[in-house]
Amino acid sequence: MNNKPAPAISWVDEEHQGVRYGLQGRVLIEEKSKYQKITVIDSVRYGKGLLLDGCWMVAEHQEKQYHECLVHPALSSAEKLSKILIIGGGDGGTARECLRYSEVHHIDMIEIDKRVVELSQQHLPSIGGKAWDDPRLHLTIQDGTSWIKNTTTNSYDVVIVDGADPLGPAEGLFNSDFFSNCQRILKPGGIFATQSESPEAFRAIHIDTVLLIRKIFDYADPLYGWVPMYPSGWWSWTFASNEQPRYKHPIPERIVEVSKKCEFWSPRWQKGAFDAIPAFVERRINK
Amino acid sequence: MNNKPAPAISWVDEEHQGVRYGLQGRVLIEEKSKYQKITVIDSVRYGKGLLLDGCWMVAEHQEKQYHECLVHPALSSAEKLSKILIIGGGDGGTARECLRYSEVHHIDMIEIDKRVVELSQQHLPSIGGKAWDDPRLHLTIQDGTSWIKNTTTNSYDVVIVDGADPLGPAEGLFNSDFFSNCQRILKPGGIFATQSESPEAFRAIHIDTVLLIRKIFDYADPLYGWVPMYPSGWWSWTFASNEQPRYKHPIPERIVEVSKKCEFWSPRWQKGAFDAIPAFVERRINK
Repeated sequence: MNNKPAPAISWVDEEHQGVRYGLQGRVLIEEKSKYQKITVIDSVRYGKGLLLDGCWMVAEHQEKQYHECLVHPALSSAEKLSKILIIGGGDGGTARECLRYSEVHHIDMIEIDKRVVELSQQHLPSIGGKAWDDPRLHLTIQDGTSWIKNTTTNSYDVVIVDGADPLGPAEGLFNSDFFSNCQRILKPGGIFATQSESPEAFRAIHIDTVLLIRKIFDYADPLYGWVPMYPSGWWSWTFASNEQPRYKHPIPERIVEVSKKCEFWSPRWQKGAFDAIPAFVERRINK
Repeated sequence: MNNKPAPAISWVDEEHQGVRYGLQGRVLIEEKSKYQKITVIDSVRYGKGLLLDGCWMVAEHQEKQYHECLVHPALSSAEKLSKILIIGGGDGGTARECLRYSEVHHIDMIEIDKRVVELSQQHLPSIGGKAWDDPRLHLTIQDGTSWIKNTTTNSYDVVIVDGADPLGPAEGLFNSDFFSNCQRILKPGGIFATQSESPEAFRAIHIDTVLLIRKIFDYADPLYGWVPMYPSGWWSWTFASNEQPRYKHPIPERIVEVSKKCEFWSPRWQKGAFDAIPAFVERRINK
């Protein structure tokens, strides 16, 4: 007999610069890992959700607009898809979207915090889905910034950075050394993709990130979308490649393969989202 | 001597379906008008802000992405701009954006609640700006749905609906009778524009509104943008016209006239935002 009472319903908020976004729900887990505070809640509106150091990361019914937008512009367009690298992505959603492509043979996923993976597998199994059991997925628990330094040049078709804000453990994912290593390990015809913060709530970081990636790759462009639980709800991802802006040209066969299962992403949406640069950002990045 | 203490800083939240969005600030005014509860706060992050019946309407430093996106796709593209109708818009921001165009000779603004206008003029003067003193602006305090029934056919170049959610006083702004009257009073070559809720937080209302407007006008299309303080932050506006989707083709001279002062809107942004239809909406509206 289990007499433990269910946790009470309360508000769990992320506060950022005098603004808060909260979900009503029951806190299931609150623990401190080696790297960060991890909270798992069961929310009324979006199913189970995860916070790291008090910042919303993901929820079961509010994650596709993040993962589809990070993955599909890169994977629908890269020249080849044999070998993919994911830095971060501990909830499994990015791997799940990558594994939709039959051309993907091998994914390396480098996540710093094994508790994020374990708690996601236990409490948010719908996000990773079958990805966790797919033999193509190879998980390594390690700091991505140190891992990438020792990785062979020209070894991945797509490199995806799916990390948290550049404070705390993800700080090293937003600098010139790191982006240069990403560029170095990409094969010719490859595409680099990273979440690149909010043009509203993290305006300076967003613009600096786009400009920095443009210094390292021949082409780089931000794409704008919506993740309600992230500060301001207005989010961006930045894609980069050499020789041509390859990420702007999805390959028709791949569109057919993945688009029917997408809730947000479509080639039309992607084209619009690359164009939908707010005037205040365009003045800074397209001078 | 004024010994009245400043109101304490607290959180002011809008709650919607188990989600809340809050701004930290001081509550300056809380009163009940004939139609609704009106709250004015001085927020830490976005300056002074206004809530109606507990729902965020506007704040000084978070309003341009709403007003620019509602006004410019319509006014940059309508055949003529001599006479404009605004239903709602009591904070003055929509009128301010319309008055940027030198071709605008006359604006009728029909706002149901005179306290919204008075409190906006008093506490949020930067939003209406010089619009309140512009002789081209003619304000009538009346219910827009009854006013529009008695308006002459073919009398406006642009009709803009800038109302609240379809609950409470704005309920009549989301039905077939009302949209038919908007169509009737538009001149040939005119454009109709309305805010059309969130495809995320008000999914059914959003889709139904787009489909309803399409039954009444030859062409109608939603445009997607970001208003962080509205539920989910993901907002839409819908534009309609007869004979051709005129709202998709801004007139070059007008772009030159207004775009330099825009923080969010640009022709490129607009083109992208019309394309950035999420797949789940496109399946419903573009069958």
